[in-house]
Amino acid sequence: MTTEVSGEGLWITLEGGDGSGKSTQAALLEEWLVGRGRTVLRTREPGGSDVGVAIREIVLHHRGDIDPRAEALLYAADRAHHVATVVRPALERGEVVVQDRYLDSSVAYQGAGRVLDAEEVRSLSLWATRDALPDVTILLDLDETAARARLDRSRTRYDRLEAEKADFHARVRAAFLELASAEPERFLVVDASSPVEEISAAIRDRVAAALRD
Amino acid sequence: MTTEVSGEGLWITLEGGDGSGKSTQAALLEEWLVGRGRTVLRTREPGGSDVGVAIREIVLHHRGDIDPRAEALLYAADRAHHVATVVRPALERGEVVVQDRYLDSSVAYQGAGRVLDAEEVRSLSLWATRDALPDVTILLDLDETAARARLDRSRTRYDRLEAEKADFHARVRAAFLELASAEPERFLVVDASSPVEEISAAIRDRVAAALRD
Repeated sequence: MTTEVSGEGLWITLEGGDGSGKSTQAALLEEWLVGRGRTVLRTREPGGSDVGVAIREIVLHHRGDIDPRAEALLYAADRAHHVATVVRPALERGEVVVQDRYLDSSVAYQGAGRVLDAEEVRSLSLWATRDALPDVTILLDLDETAARARLDRSRTRYDRLEAEKADFHARVRAAFLELASAEPERFLVVDASSPVEEISAAIRDRVAAALRD
Repeated sequence: MTTEVSGEGLWITLEGGDGSGKSTQAALLEEWLVGRGRTVLRTREPGGSDVGVAIREIVLHHRGDIDPRAEALLYAADRAHHVATVVRPALERGEVVVQDRYLDSSVAYQGAGRVLDAEEVRSLSLWATRDALPDVTILLDLDETAARARLDRSRTRYDRLEAEKADFHARVRAAFLELASAEPERFLVVDASSPVEEISAAIRDRVAAALRD
């Protein structure tokens, strides 16, 4: 984390579009970490805290439009509470936090994909969390046509974000790649269309280096 | 409003501690305005919109602590959606909006009363609403001992904010008075311990001048 915490925790976030395999990779990573004797906290945003569950319900399932700034503020509120009450305490206990989505998702979806300025959205998240950034961020990069095909096979009902257009997903993907190239030390970009085991091996290598054990 | 809207609407907010008589004065003002042929929209924050009702439920009735930044962001989210979907449309239709609490409450309660910087809280609200400020803000100023006595008489159960300590209310009151002295053209400060009719007359005078009709 940018802001110092005690203990020897490690904070890993997984980013990428829906259907890019984040859940699968998070599960494999957790299994591997537990096998190495680490305590793992699996979490997510939005909805990774008690307050966050209520916020997630609003942002993902509200009927009718939500003002874009209100939406960005709701994600930031979820983030503030989640980092303060879930992530920081786990890191202080020395655990490995494996988290599905963090501020890069907000910047990519809200900033690049919608009407808000990406830099403003990032600033909002950093204010919310007192500048907390993960040690490692895995970007599962997937061509949006492939992403949609995967979702179409596995689901019959989309939630609000998933129902957005393909063009929107292309802009989100480009925004994720731009974020990764701006912070190469934090990001590992993997081709999400590669075989699952190949991806998980690449992630393990990166995490092992960060753990230094 | 700071940002221009079409139409001839007027936006009035009422501020002050709990028990200062905002609801009574809002009702009297509405009655007077309707008598002059104006269409009035009575609203409030938090909870003045559909999304806001869900947010209000979180901030006022969540069991357990909410991270202070998360709380400020939730109020700002409520505000963003409320101004975009309720207040601005009403002003564009030429209506008079009479609103219980706005950003001055956030600054006074969150900034001065708690752990956050008042200027940051104000900036957050202004970002949320694209710099929307009311035409007139009525501050019902009441000594916190008197405020508590009024509440004790009228209620048996307090909500989360109302349950805060008297010392907190003193800091909030001081913060409201400071905000009013910084923007004398927007604010009308009235002594909330005065007779109801005296207060409502002072409010009517100020609003009549703003209406210019």
